[in-house]
Amino acid sequence: MVAPQAWSRIPEPVVRRLPKYLSLVQQWRAEGAEWILSADLAKALGLTGSTVRQDLSHLKVTGTARRGYRTAELERVLARVLGADRTWKVVIVGAGNLGRALAQHGDLHRHGFKICAIFDVDPAVIGRKVGDLRVRPFSELDEVVAAEKVKLAIAAVPGAAAQEVADHLVAAGIKGILNLAYANVLVRPGVAVVNARLLESLQELVFLVGAQAEQRRKRR
Amino acid sequence: MVAPQAWSRIPEPVVRRLPKYLSLVQQWRAEGAEWILSADLAKALGLTGSTVRQDLSHLKVTGTARRGYRTAELERVLARVLGADRTWKVVIVGAGNLGRALAQHGDLHRHGFKICAIFDVDPAVIGRKVGDLRVRPFSELDEVVAAEKVKLAIAAVPGAAAQEVADHLVAAGIKGILNLAYANVLVRPGVAVVNARLLESLQELVFLVGAQAEQRRKRR
Repeated sequence: MVAPQAWSRIPEPVVRRLPKYLSLVQQWRAEGAEWILSADLAKALGLTGSTVRQDLSHLKVTGTARRGYRTAELERVLARVLGADRTWKVVIVGAGNLGRALAQHGDLHRHGFKICAIFDVDPAVIGRKVGDLRVRPFSELDEVVAAEKVKLAIAAVPGAAAQEVADHLVAAGIKGILNLAYANVLVRPGVAVVNARLLESLQELVFLVGAQAEQRRKRR
Repeated sequence: MVAPQAWSRIPEPVVRRLPKYLSLVQQWRAEGAEWILSADLAKALGLTGSTVRQDLSHLKVTGTARRGYRTAELERVLARVLGADRTWKVVIVGAGNLGRALAQHGDLHRHGFKICAIFDVDPAVIGRKVGDLRVRPFSELDEVVAAEKVKLAIAAVPGAAAQEVADHLVAAGIKGILNLAYANVLVRPGVAVVNARLLESLQELVFLVGAQAEQRRKRR
């Protein structure tokens, strides 16, 4: 049994790549591949083979030079560290367009994330149906988190409310927050925050489009 | 006039942090700050001051040791490289829950991203109202992209359709794709892809929650 150790020491860029490895490995295993070469993972993800081997060595998975990694083992280890081998309960705060869309997002359900409640403060929205759920008043957050032992929350609220909502979530016992708001959220040590902002991703994209246009001009 | 140069050489993790700097600088400027210290940016983003100074030096912005960066200049340079100083037309492909939510996402509109069309292939969805838009048949993509000179697209389609949609977008003249699907998309050099997958962000969060639980165990 190969046990990943000292997760907390794995650098952030590596952590961010792990879900991408998992997605590829799952796909290739479904297609019947028994072994996976670091070179193939590298090619599919636009990395170098040495980056891939270094990344995976953090999980104490090692391949052989000739055949690479055993697909089943790689998938098992990645699934374990990313929690993809069990079900996670998640609450969503904010039943706007984005919150409602995520509550019904098939990708999350299919990969073990069970949205068990969606909350809002707006009386006009509370009680409204979202898939199989009904929007609950935010005041019921503590009760739901405690009763269902929820560890994860998605905050899909306006930027101005993000910090207050995060504070409530932490006080209720949430250990990890996916923050979708365009505002920085600070939490006490021991709670994890991942920011996933489509606006920032679009700005990153604009930057890359500019960088590529610049390269084209230089080549001329 | 300080001009950012050689954008294409700026490392990816730095690029990914630039929108976060912009968001903070905008916020602090709105609050009246004339100068910003790298130490304050570092603290707000959980970085070291030296990382902040290195990151910003890529944009040829330099601060003074005592007062830091001039807020207005820093905002102007960041806004320029991230395209936040102009309006960008964006098409969305996929009028499912997520595509429709993004078409109406206030954060994008407020920050210069104008969704000018949303497409789908499903006859049951085509013609449906989404905010001020109506869902158009995907077959009209080329026409819209050419007529409106659109450079950016958001692909909010199922994983199985992601590559085909990306190929269509590139053929239509799109230069940057924000891919929301849980599938890797390959495009020819000269086109940029940014993946923004909420599933991956949730998996990253699960990893961090696990890492922090591990740290707590060790401290005991």
